[in-house]
Amino acid sequence: MRALLFDVFGTSVDWRSSIQRLGHRFGLPDEFADDWRAQYQPQLETVRSGRRPWVNLDVLHRIGLDLVLADYDRDLPERFRRTLVQGWHELDPWPDTVAGLTAIKRSKIIAPCSNGHIAQSVNLAKHAGLPWDAILGAEIARAYKPDPRVYTAAADALQLDHEDVCLVAAHNSDLQAAQRLGFRTAFVPRPTEHGHGQTSDLAPAGRFDIVAVNFLDLAEQVI
Amino acid sequence: MRALLFDVFGTSVDWRSSIQRLGHRFGLPDEFADDWRAQYQPQLETVRSGRRPWVNLDVLHRIGLDLVLADYDRDLPERFRRTLVQGWHELDPWPDTVAGLTAIKRSKIIAPCSNGHIAQSVNLAKHAGLPWDAILGAEIARAYKPDPRVYTAAADALQLDHEDVCLVAAHNSDLQAAQRLGFRTAFVPRPTEHGHGQTSDLAPAGRFDIVAVNFLDLAEQVI
Repeated sequence: MRALLFDVFGTSVDWRSSIQRLGHRFGLPDEFADDWRAQYQPQLETVRSGRRPWVNLDVLHRIGLDLVLADYDRDLPERFRRTLVQGWHELDPWPDTVAGLTAIKRSKIIAPCSNGHIAQSVNLAKHAGLPWDAILGAEIARAYKPDPRVYTAAADALQLDHEDVCLVAAHNSDLQAAQRLGFRTAFVPRPTEHGHGQTSDLAPAGRFDIVAVNFLDLAEQVI
Repeated sequence: MRALLFDVFGTSVDWRSSIQRLGHRFGLPDEFADDWRAQYQPQLETVRSGRRPWVNLDVLHRIGLDLVLADYDRDLPERFRRTLVQGWHELDPWPDTVAGLTAIKRSKIIAPCSNGHIAQSVNLAKHAGLPWDAILGAEIARAYKPDPRVYTAAADALQLDHEDVCLVAAHNSDLQAAQRLGFRTAFVPRPTEHGHGQTSDLAPAGRFDIVAVNFLDLAEQVI
């Protein structure tokens, strides 16, 4: 295993708490973060299905935000909407994320393989202290996971065979997509990604190479 | 200034000493590093001119290497040729490079804007300890500097205006190309890049925003 690719939203960072907190600044309710995130897959699907040409995640987040605010009948000014979209560039890591990545980086290449674009991933890394070796993911493939091109473009960019690269994710569907392409896989559950009532992705739903309780445990298993 | 983009070969790393040392392992003379490097611009030009579709720098280095070895009448085995090409993934930094980049990274985004491809840049960063925030450059533009698309693609990837981005280079022609596109520019001479008899790029040949004696001086001027 030469490189580890990491899912970011949910796996490396706690988007929900960060977006909830930002929403509160604009008087938005707790469920705002979940309602906005519920627009995520449908908006990605407009690109995956070919109905929309590739646009970056800021654009898709904005479309989803406008729909949620319309549902809420909230007429938020343009500059506040921009601040909210930018909030996805400033999410907090899980407590084990930075220490785990730092340990793994000593002997492996580490990079995000996220649906976030390069600028979002760089800004997020600066904010959260994520010590990536490179920024890979959706933008270099101009496609969105689980489109196989995203995983394949990341391995190709590193000039590595799929079997020498491990995808790390808290989401079974993400790992299954990578596994079908011959990547190694590591499941790291994030049981409160969706709050304390979470029912999905609490356990691995497949035979993954590694199951780790967090990034520190992952580091112990791969280095 | 939000981000600094760095030329790599010559500006951030001392390719000549590293390639000379590697050449010695195969009984190649001191001038081998210079002779191989002399193939660099002509090979890039085959892509810039459109005579060849974009291929990465490993491919162009290999073509140049084969020409040099043919000139030398040296029939080096395939595996040694691969080791030599891979040598461009393992060049040593100048003594001030890592400390300067580390200081600048605390308050700015730093990334290579090199004609090296992503894998080469990542491997080089791991070898030399270059703490880049992202890997930008030729591959994301599928073009070679001084093609304007390389500089523009880097700023676009960071979602930054050209005037908020500074190119750092030891080569006047590189800086002039970026300056014409509205980038800020920093000249850092590397007077022994080509050895002690160097006559080119000893002084700035233009009105650049910053002139620094090395990356530590650059850090003091930008942070």
